[in-house]
Amino acid sequence: MHAAFPSRMWGWRPYEKRHIDMKKIAILTSGGDSPGMNCAVRSVVRYGIYKGLEVAGISYGYRGLIEGRYQTLQPRDVSNIIELGGTFLKSARSNRFLEKEGREAALANLLENGIEGMVVIGGNGSYNGALLFHREFGFPVIGIPGTIDNDINGSQKTLGFDTALNTAIDAVDKIKDTSASMDRIFLVEVMGRFSGSIAVSSALAGGAEDVLLPGEPWSIEEILKKIDKGRRRGKHSWIIIVAEGACQAQELATKIKAHNFDVRATVIGHIQRGGSPSAFDRILGALMGRAAVDGLLAGKNCHAVGWRNENAVIYPLEDAVRAKAENYKGQLNLVHILT
Amino acid sequence: MHAAFPSRMWGWRPYEKRHIDMKKIAILTSGGDSPGMNCAVRSVVRYGIYKGLEVAGISYGYRGLIEGRYQTLQPRDVSNIIELGGTFLKSARSNRFLEKEGREAALANLLENGIEGMVVIGGNGSYNGALLFHREFGFPVIGIPGTIDNDINGSQKTLGFDTALNTAIDAVDKIKDTSASMDRIFLVEVMGRFSGSIAVSSALAGGAEDVLLPGEPWSIEEILKKIDKGRRRGKHSWIIIVAEGACQAQELATKIKAHNFDVRATVIGHIQRGGSPSAFDRILGALMGRAAVDGLLAGKNCHAVGWRNENAVIYPLEDAVRAKAENYKGQLNLVHILT
Amino acid sequence: MHAAFPSRMWGWRPYEKRHIDMKKIAILTSGGDSPGMNCAVRSVVRYGIYKGLEVAGISYGYRGLIEGRYQTLQPRDVSNIIELGGTFLKSARSNRFLEKEGREAALANLLENGIEGMVVIGGNGSYNGALLFHREFGFPVIGIPGTIDNDINGSQKTLGFDTALNTAIDAVDKIKDTSASMDRIFLVEVMGRFSGSIAVSSALAGGAEDVLLPGEPWSIEEILKKIDKGRRRGKHSWIIIVAEGACQAQELATKIKAHNFDVRATVIGHIQRGGSPSAFDRILGALMGRAAVDGLLAGKNCHAVGWRNENAVIYPLEDAVRAKAENYKGQLNLVHILT
Amino acid sequence: MHAAFPSRMWGWRPYEKRHIDMKKIAILTSGGDSPGMNCAVRSVVRYGIYKGLEVAGISYGYRGLIEGRYQTLQPRDVSNIIELGGTFLKSARSNRFLEKEGREAALANLLENGIEGMVVIGGNGSYNGALLFHREFGFPVIGIPGTIDNDINGSQKTLGFDTALNTAIDAVDKIKDTSASMDRIFLVEVMGRFSGSIAVSSALAGGAEDVLLPGEPWSIEEILKKIDKGRRRGKHSWIIIVAEGACQAQELATKIKAHNFDVRATVIGHIQRGGSPSAFDRILGALMGRAAVDGLLAGKNCHAVGWRNENAVIYPLEDAVRAKAENYKGQLNLVHILT
Repeated sequence: MHAAFPSRMWGWRPYEKRHIDMKKIAILTSGGDSPGMNCAVRSVVRYGIYKGLEVAGISYGYRGLIEGRYQTLQPRDVSNIIELGGTFLKSARSNRFLEKEGREAALANLLENGIEGMVVIGGNGSYNGALLFHREFGFPVIGIPGTIDNDINGSQKTLGFDTALNTAIDAVDKIKDTSASMDRIFLVEVMGRFSGSIAVSSALAGGAEDVLLPGEPWSIEEILKKIDKGRRRGKHSWIIIVAEGACQAQELATKIKAHNFDVRATVIGHIQRGGSPSAFDRILGALMGRAAVDGLLAGKNCHAVGWRNENAVIYPLEDAVRAKAENYKGQLNLVHILT
Repeated sequence: MHAAFPSRMWGWRPYEKRHIDMKKIAILTSGGDSPGMNCAVRSVVRYGIYKGLEVAGISYGYRGLIEGRYQTLQPRDVSNIIELGGTFLKSARSNRFLEKEGREAALANLLENGIEGMVVIGGNGSYNGALLFHREFGFPVIGIPGTIDNDINGSQKTLGFDTALNTAIDAVDKIKDTSASMDRIFLVEVMGRFSGSIAVSSALAGGAEDVLLPGEPWSIEEILKKIDKGRRRGKHSWIIIVAEGACQAQELATKIKAHNFDVRATVIGHIQRGGSPSAFDRILGALMGRAAVDGLLAGKNCHAVGWRNENAVIYPLEDAVRAKAENYKGQLNLVHILT
Repeated sequence: MHAAFPSRMWGWRPYEKRHIDMKKIAILTSGGDSPGMNCAVRSVVRYGIYKGLEVAGISYGYRGLIEGRYQTLQPRDVSNIIELGGTFLKSARSNRFLEKEGREAALANLLENGIEGMVVIGGNGSYNGALLFHREFGFPVIGIPGTIDNDINGSQKTLGFDTALNTAIDAVDKIKDTSASMDRIFLVEVMGRFSGSIAVSSALAGGAEDVLLPGEPWSIEEILKKIDKGRRRGKHSWIIIVAEGACQAQELATKIKAHNFDVRATVIGHIQRGGSPSAFDRILGALMGRAAVDGLLAGKNCHAVGWRNENAVIYPLEDAVRAKAENYKGQLNLVHILT
Repeated sequence: MHAAFPSRMWGWRPYEKRHIDMKKIAILTSGGDSPGMNCAVRSVVRYGIYKGLEVAGISYGYRGLIEGRYQTLQPRDVSNIIELGGTFLKSARSNRFLEKEGREAALANLLENGIEGMVVIGGNGSYNGALLFHREFGFPVIGIPGTIDNDINGSQKTLGFDTALNTAIDAVDKIKDTSASMDRIFLVEVMGRFSGSIAVSSALAGGAEDVLLPGEPWSIEEILKKIDKGRRRGKHSWIIIVAEGACQAQELATKIKAHNFDVRATVIGHIQRGGSPSAFDRILGALMGRAAVDGLLAGKNCHAVGWRNENAVIYPLEDAVRAKAENYKGQLNLVHILT
């Protein structure tokens, strides 16, 4: 599957030995930003340099790869970024990288810059891009799961999830103040794309009365019945977490309002992506960055870093891009029982 | 204007002397909740008791006044509420209080409970209710401006505004992480009803590129022109604060998107009402609560507490319900200059 | 080992069957408080009731057990505590429980109240008390590791650690502002008793230049050498995390100051124990509470709840009280490499 | 008093007209850092440029002035600093500036760089330096009160005070969790040098039981009496705020402990200096920066910016360096009444 292309044109060494004296790697952040990305970049840069590598930062993700936005990073370049949200390398989505032509341009740039391996920090889409890129050209890639959605197969936690969850909880706590003061129902929509991870966790941690999850059945009738039942035993304030992948809070609010309940919808929105990373995400970034460098140096050339049993592990990228099978039943039941 | 009604029926003492040996007052929170309300209630209860008064807490605002939801509060009842958002007395909006019948029922309850003065913590609507109530029945009332909107005439700050502003700033900071990482335009809608106070302050404090305020002219053409001009000199991320009284962020986003810009709208929403009150709002609550009790005892029977020149002052309620003339020009210019 | 005492005196049923129709359990928090204790109590109470149990809350830990401070808890009694630090059951240290006489009084109270199992939330000392209590009387106990120190053998995380760590990080971030602005060395002492868990984690997450850990060798000469070396390559600000089990920051500061460096010591102190629990600690509390109830009902009568591989597990209490073997080498090296 | 020195040597224009076509100013931060300094620098730079000035940033305060650490600042140089604590210009204390020789070197640098006015952001010591500098050489200076201590005469608030107060409150809230859970007395020492401003405000906002202030009498006997009295009516947890200018918390704790009370001392320490500035401090920085530039351009050549009645005002620097007469009686009484 590896095209002969690079080896012919660029004197590409045989894959099996490539890592042994790897000299230069690149790092980029891709897709939506997530808190902790800066910590991972810092770790890759400093640990990479410690391991004798030169590390090039590529700005604007795959787009920058194509446009040749390279800069060799020194330890000082990643000073004072550990506590910052977002990604100082900037991120972007790239349509050109979806085309063969774009990927060839990216490869040409990598090779021209003497880069022999690439760390990609991003979510599912970024992983798929990296996998395709490796399959086409045999170029060594390793992924770090940078996404708040916690939807990467093979990793118990993704980088940014813990921070996003804490931001969501903080919002839920604040909304509960009003909900309790005004005896009001609040539908709180949280992020997570097709995953219900932020939703079920914030329901459990926020003490929400209910949570609507992608893939879990719910009906407005049942919600109304529960609210009504609660009301009869004196319970008037009500927080229902809504995963963005389950339904739109605003639409649901309109339907519930039609039954004469005092209900408000609030969409926590983009604040979940930003903010100073939590302690956990900072440590995750540090450990995953180290694992990515070690992985590349060990010849893991189409892999991802995962978090399992409190450790950063390396596993095949093709496992990482598979759909994550999630089972929220246990936590969902507990949300209902603890309310 | 004072109806003979209460004095006839309840042996109402002549107004002029009433306060001299006032024995019992009531306190309620009304309208939307705001952080710091609990601090003000705590202050009224404890300072009132210190001044020899009995203080009855009325739950659910004017609705509770009508429904007779009274409870004498002891110092212990307001323990450990200083750091809590919302209002432990609960709040509500009351349609019955808009009717003469409802207000008469409220008065009957007050008199039956031996209450001789009332502290109302709330915003404009609550103030209007209190003013009407006083005008009809001569019942002594004093208002504390509990609203995040900072729209009460005669008070430089309202109770809850500082906390809401800090919450808005925190959200803006987080959104800037994504905005800067993705080179994206964000429209951030903040609360404030018809007031632009939170909007202009959060724009100045958040370092926003622009802010749309009620009463200040703006046009989509000019916004697009600025963005375009910025883009040409290398500025790609953009935060525009939108006061809810100026326009809807989502609608504006749709229009800007039509011009091929990468734009997102986010509505900070109800989190601005909740949360632990800031240091300033806690102190404001303490000082305003004391002023309210002192005011009632000094015979200020249709007044409001205001914050002027770092002091809690007492002034006529009819001044407080007038529209606040706001002039954002200076701050608005500064937002534009500092960007 | 089980004394015949209870069965003779109280009609104690044979141990093996006791759990099958367990009807009433007790819960207490003991030792130093930690954030998340309230979440665990809420979970034990509500999940216990869901499982058909009556749950008695005992205030002031073992002292309350002896003094008979019992109160049956209803679901409503644990409303609105999920977001609060500390423990609403209150905690205490009890000298009487160290004496046989005290423990007998405790047992008498438990039996008199018809209690058949006990959940103890606390750290090492509390666990040892529970173990002794079980060994003496055969009374079923199950522990939940409530301590910020993360020093319980057999549990990857303890309840409160994540919150304390985030509080420490927040403090480190703030101190870095001054350290960087003033080109100053700061020694920051964090909690953890004999454990270096908070210290090494906050050093890694805070981007500290160094960390002194219990059991890891360090010398003032080496610290001075590093600082001096850094200074020569232009590095003037310096954060050194000091585990309370390693040395006293103030003393070390005095010694470093003697070498003419601009150094300050700061002891983060008790703020690390308090504060609203993080999302992770809230979820941990919920899951551990459920596991404790399930454990008691499954006849696990001298066990602890642990956190392993993202799951709450049940394991023998005697394992939990063994000294935790910690190896900070990997993280410690990474702290040094990433600086 | 103005030495003929500069005009002779550097073609110094007569003072009275100097400001009319002022072309270049300098800005520095001096003394201890405080949150909001960056906001003020950003405002001076961007507003100054808007007014046609060139603005030179001087790093390391007066030391940098002497050592010639100048850099012309562009609008971009102050991007993304509004939310950062500390001062990106760095600060320092300078012994050489206390000597005539040092100040002459500073002047020489200023004139050599064509600088015609200077904005000094700092506290009392920095103000005294600026005053002396102006008196010696007639060089135009304007001060911005950057200190958390709130001890500058003529300004109701200083830049950084609100943030420090909120940090102190946050710490007090956390400590209350433990205090309440363990029925324990906590002495919490806050900053403020000789001022009791942070102390009395954090006591009022934190709901502390007592506060010890500089200049206000207190005795250990009275404290013990109060605690004892409280204990008898069932009050066991106790927060006493201690201003660093009043006494040392640790010493007092030792004395109270000697009377068999369960007491802990905690020194909040340097975290009070750092952290992202509050909304208020950011706005203060913006408005004070503008006022400083306007002041220099209006020929206010030995003045300070103050905050009065919600406005930035300009007043003589010699007033600003006078001791601030503070009267805490009213707030102190309220602390006692509200407990």
